[in-house]
Amino acid sequence: MEPLVGIIIGSDSDLGVMSKTAEILDKLEIPYEFSIISAHRTPDRMYEYARQARKRGLKAIIAGAGGAAHVPGMVAAMTTVPVIGVPIQAKALDGMDALFSICQMPPGIPVATVAINGALNAGILAAKIIATNDEALADRLEAYATNMKETVEKKAAKLESIGYSEYLKQMQSK
Amino acid sequence: MEPLVGIIIGSDSDLGVMSKTAEILDKLEIPYEFSIISAHRTPDRMYEYARQARKRGLKAIIAGAGGAAHVPGMVAAMTTVPVIGVPIQAKALDGMDALFSICQMPPGIPVATVAINGALNAGILAAKIIATNDEALADRLEAYATNMKETVEKKAAKLESIGYSEYLKQMQSK
Amino acid sequence: MEPLVGIIIGSDSDLGVMSKTAEILDKLEIPYEFSIISAHRTPDRMYEYARQARKRGLKAIIAGAGGAAHVPGMVAAMTTVPVIGVPIQAKALDGMDALFSICQMPPGIPVATVAINGALNAGILAAKIIATNDEALADRLEAYATNMKETVEKKAAKLESIGYSEYLKQMQSK
Amino acid sequence: MEPLVGIIIGSDSDLGVMSKTAEILDKLEIPYEFSIISAHRTPDRMYEYARQARKRGLKAIIAGAGGAAHVPGMVAAMTTVPVIGVPIQAKALDGMDALFSICQMPPGIPVATVAINGALNAGILAAKIIATNDEALADRLEAYATNMKETVEKKAAKLESIGYSEYLKQMQSK
Amino acid sequence: MEPLVGIIIGSDSDLGVMSKTAEILDKLEIPYEFSIISAHRTPDRMYEYARQARKRGLKAIIAGAGGAAHVPGMVAAMTTVPVIGVPIQAKALDGMDALFSICQMPPGIPVATVAINGALNAGILAAKIIATNDEALADRLEAYATNMKETVEKKAAKLESIGYSEYLKQMQSK
Amino acid sequence: MEPLVGIIIGSDSDLGVMSKTAEILDKLEIPYEFSIISAHRTPDRMYEYARQARKRGLKAIIAGAGGAAHVPGMVAAMTTVPVIGVPIQAKALDGMDALFSICQMPPGIPVATVAINGALNAGILAAKIIATNDEALADRLEAYATNMKETVEKKAAKLESIGYSEYLKQMQSK
Amino acid sequence: MEPLVGIIIGSDSDLGVMSKTAEILDKLEIPYEFSIISAHRTPDRMYEYARQARKRGLKAIIAGAGGAAHVPGMVAAMTTVPVIGVPIQAKALDGMDALFSICQMPPGIPVATVAINGALNAGILAAKIIATNDEALADRLEAYATNMKETVEKKAAKLESIGYSEYLKQMQSK
Amino acid sequence: MEPLVGIIIGSDSDLGVMSKTAEILDKLEIPYEFSIISAHRTPDRMYEYARQARKRGLKAIIAGAGGAAHVPGMVAAMTTVPVIGVPIQAKALDGMDALFSICQMPPGIPVATVAINGALNAGILAAKIIATNDEALADRLEAYATNMKETVEKKAAKLESIGYSEYLKQMQSK
Repeated sequence: MEPLVGIIIGSDSDLGVMSKTAEILDKLEIPYEFSIISAHRTPDRMYEYARQARKRGLKAIIAGAGGAAHVPGMVAAMTTVPVIGVPIQAKALDGMDALFSICQMPPGIPVATVAINGALNAGILAAKIIATNDEALADRLEAYATNMKETVEKKAAKLESIGYSEYLKQMQSK
Repeated sequence: MEPLVGIIIGSDSDLGVMSKTAEILDKLEIPYEFSIISAHRTPDRMYEYARQARKRGLKAIIAGAGGAAHVPGMVAAMTTVPVIGVPIQAKALDGMDALFSICQMPPGIPVATVAINGALNAGILAAKIIATNDEALADRLEAYATNMKETVEKKAAKLESIGYSEYLKQMQSK
Repeated sequence: MEPLVGIIIGSDSDLGVMSKTAEILDKLEIPYEFSIISAHRTPDRMYEYARQARKRGLKAIIAGAGGAAHVPGMVAAMTTVPVIGVPIQAKALDGMDALFSICQMPPGIPVATVAINGALNAGILAAKIIATNDEALADRLEAYATNMKETVEKKAAKLESIGYSEYLKQMQSK
Repeated sequence: MEPLVGIIIGSDSDLGVMSKTAEILDKLEIPYEFSIISAHRTPDRMYEYARQARKRGLKAIIAGAGGAAHVPGMVAAMTTVPVIGVPIQAKALDGMDALFSICQMPPGIPVATVAINGALNAGILAAKIIATNDEALADRLEAYATNMKETVEKKAAKLESIGYSEYLKQMQSK
Repeated sequence: MEPLVGIIIGSDSDLGVMSKTAEILDKLEIPYEFSIISAHRTPDRMYEYARQARKRGLKAIIAGAGGAAHVPGMVAAMTTVPVIGVPIQAKALDGMDALFSICQMPPGIPVATVAINGALNAGILAAKIIATNDEALADRLEAYATNMKETVEKKAAKLESIGYSEYLKQMQSK
Repeated sequence: MEPLVGIIIGSDSDLGVMSKTAEILDKLEIPYEFSIISAHRTPDRMYEYARQARKRGLKAIIAGAGGAAHVPGMVAAMTTVPVIGVPIQAKALDGMDALFSICQMPPGIPVATVAINGALNAGILAAKIIATNDEALADRLEAYATNMKETVEKKAAKLESIGYSEYLKQMQSK
Repeated sequence: MEPLVGIIIGSDSDLGVMSKTAEILDKLEIPYEFSIISAHRTPDRMYEYARQARKRGLKAIIAGAGGAAHVPGMVAAMTTVPVIGVPIQAKALDGMDALFSICQMPPGIPVATVAINGALNAGILAAKIIATNDEALADRLEAYATNMKETVEKKAAKLESIGYSEYLKQMQSK
Repeated sequence: MEPLVGIIIGSDSDLGVMSKTAEILDKLEIPYEFSIISAHRTPDRMYEYARQARKRGLKAIIAGAGGAAHVPGMVAAMTTVPVIGVPIQAKALDGMDALFSICQMPPGIPVATVAINGALNAGILAAKIIATNDEALADRLEAYATNMKETVEKKAAKLESIGYSEYLKQMQSK
């Protein structure tokens, strides 16, 4: 099946965080591709990728980047496909540099920014975008939400039943 | 025409900033609705709004909010429709409070955050989302980008021709 | 005994921090309940909880949350019961995101924010609120303060007597 | 009538912000007193005030302070009466200094911190505290919330009816 | 004379700040060119510019940008010519977004970042770079430093002679 | 009389803020000198000044500086005389840059940092240092504190007597 | 010998950091006392301590505190003895809360703030204060500075002689 | 061969970070010297170093420093040789203190600031400066960039071929 979502990272050191995007897309049965595209090390590759995205049928591009994270904004500048940016926390500045670099785009070129290290949410946002024209996927998203709700309710029931102290003990012994 | 985008603000004091969203949607010929929904003052109205959004045919919801900006995240929690959050700068903290409150959502409930006061970009992001299934709109977006490019090029040509000093003088006399 | 305080967390990952609230309430002999209520995963449960709080006799609700911490503010929007928010430090941004999201509430809907990870203080604040109409509890709070004072005085006496160097050695050998 | 709330400011330069606290308490029919007590310039006065608060029948103390805002925390250290702190934004640091100084209290001595310049909310929080044992006040608070809700709804109806552009024009001409 | 320095801005709204770069280069007799190149609105123009820079004989490129300031980093990725980035302060975040976006470049692609709004310093830094192989220019830079020194010394002598109070009065009456 | 305190500023643009230091020293009858010494523009002058300070009889040096404020730390590195640094708020970064640059000195070379724009406090701190060996000055400092206390008490009495609303009116009409 | 410096900490958890102050005072042969005084847990003890300081002959008080660090400012408010504040880094906010709480004191009540965790520097600053009237101590401080200089020079010579790579290896093997 | 680049650190604790500068200069075949020069502990040595730099033929000076990082700015004040500053992350404040202290230099004295801990980039920036008059070095820099590009492309090909999950496994097993 043709990929609907492109996941790109600037360096394989971001793969640990960004693998969560792939996992959730798998779970939601959305075909995707996953590659490495660096704004600074492979600018031509980035241009090419961004400019082919629409005609290749991508419905969303998810770009994870840390530091002076340029790849989400640069890709967004060269395609009509919505771009989702995931700020990745590096050693210094607690992720604030990537957050500001991705989020504070100038008028005309938005990047849909999610939380720092929010790779899972980037996948869900892509799913919500695609679901605007895919009722079955919208239903799967509702099921996903329902499942989250039920998980919380189960845990709540357990906490109320055994008490916080025992609950905590069981958590810690895992 | 039925609205495809819902623009909501928590208070009419945010209307000045968020009117830019409406203007760009007008320009891109995307039908929208515009209302006031406060997470804290009208929680039921917010629930109702969020839960009806999908069946009412909205393809994106754009929520502008300042301070402990809850409305984008709460609406996102109750619909499969993608929610775009616009952090609005208030008097203190330079917009950082709204940015963090909107962006740092927990796993499972993304908000597509744009720049602080980035109301225009929220509209374009909504357009990009809708354009994933609307070739004509995608073409209008490309035309918009081309127009931005040409405006820059014209200004660049003028700056190169008359020099920065004369250019600046003309800007300031406007 | 009917609970006077409701402790709620959005996810059981916050239980480690928030168990300190329960411990101090136990110590101050204040009956409480402890459950999991997620603003984003269980919004209906949150509405229900908030709207029943007053008639159920709660005198304070303590909500711990991290990131874009919405639960304290949303609950506060739907009840006259005072809500105490505990910002929980997550991996990125050093707790600042939760602090801003909880504290920067709009006019009309206050959340009584305590320190980042200040779960113990949330319990004492709830006690102070209840003590405004419970002389015996106010006396227990004064005893608690006296006890803190005496602990400091004893440590001070010891430090002055054995010197900082020996004191430090004894601390480190524990 | 004996005051139930004590409003204190460290300097009369904070009076402009903190007068909002008095106004809302007037509106909610809660008797209060309003004075100037500086942690650094009148420490004895502060000690005296804090230590008399409980026996004088105060149910809440609201302290507004900017910069290295010590008065809320110091008063909280010497009374069982709940203390609400209002961080006041000064020229530098955007209010962050006052927020951190008030909020980050050590274990055992909580201050109920509200938003930067959140004087109105401090008054409402005091009201919520008192309302835990005053049904009539709790009803007035619910009426206040209902009123906020209706104001938003009226504005929303107007915005939906006349459109954002006309609405904005009317706002600006005021 | 062929330009040795290229000054580029992403938008003419940055011209006011960046004209200081041109002024100092004029003063130091360094030929330059000045144009508008937007990373996001004219990416091809930026590629072209960056890739021609070395063979066109530029010894330094100075790029001023605000917000998610991408142009300095992207140009630096495509040329061996040293790139100097000037973070420009916009309405929100006090210039921190531009500073982080320009400065926090990944390994392999440095941008020589100067102070927020530090357009004059960018020009001097370019001059210092060129002066590494231009003794006459190095001498002019030393003369410039000597001149700064003497200006301070004259002001110091005046302040010491007439006193701070009179000095201040004369400053304010200008 | 020989100066006991040296006040230095890096640029006469800081004179407005730093004149408060001179005023309080006048009031406390402490002889001082006031000059301009730039770390970056007059490094030799700074070396000379720092190295002569002890033998010239200075008991404290007060240095006001903004941005990458080096002069307090550099002077402190070259004298045993205590150096007090006043971070001066510039246009960007709200004074945080000067605060960090002055305060975060490495082990061995302290600067006594006061609040951002805290020029008055720098003067009082110098006075407290000198007063450690000048009983008369210590008495004047106590009188100064008593005077501050009485001013607050008078204002408090007035506020309690005429009410916050009338008090505010009188303030605003000044 | 009577102590000239009082070192105080709010909690023995700060002893690890603050023991560096005692060590340097020992080295500089300055008699000191070391105790625990909590602004919030032992306010009376703090008052007493501050108010006796001058007549007890203290020349400087060094107070280490974390979070909403009130003890340095409160002590400074009640004595003419110079107070040196050491902001202590806690788990959240990277020490910024303590830095702001200690440094941003209001006009009239300075605290001489040193770097975050700068306990050693607090000791040296106290020494510099005392040395303003103790030539022998001033000489010891100059010797201390000379010693620092020589240590750096020796390391520099070694680095230049064996190269960075071998130097690093030797460091890491320690 | 005579060194073209001077690498200086204020303390050997920064050697671990700054050794990356030496490594890249080795790789790019640029002769350099490496020493320890502390702004605060060896100010004379720093003056001497800065003032000899031009005549000794240095084309760039790279200074790494943490906290109130003064050495880059002070050296820059005393030479026409371009100075590159590397902010080094210390325990508190996440590197922000060093970044601001190095970057926010006053008009007239630029420091070319690179990323926090960006020692490798400092070396490349020095190389770019030297390459403005060394075609062979410019070619080596292009080769370096090409090599970075090819490394990314190879990794991208591998990721696309074996999938993210297998790729991640192989990374983690290293």
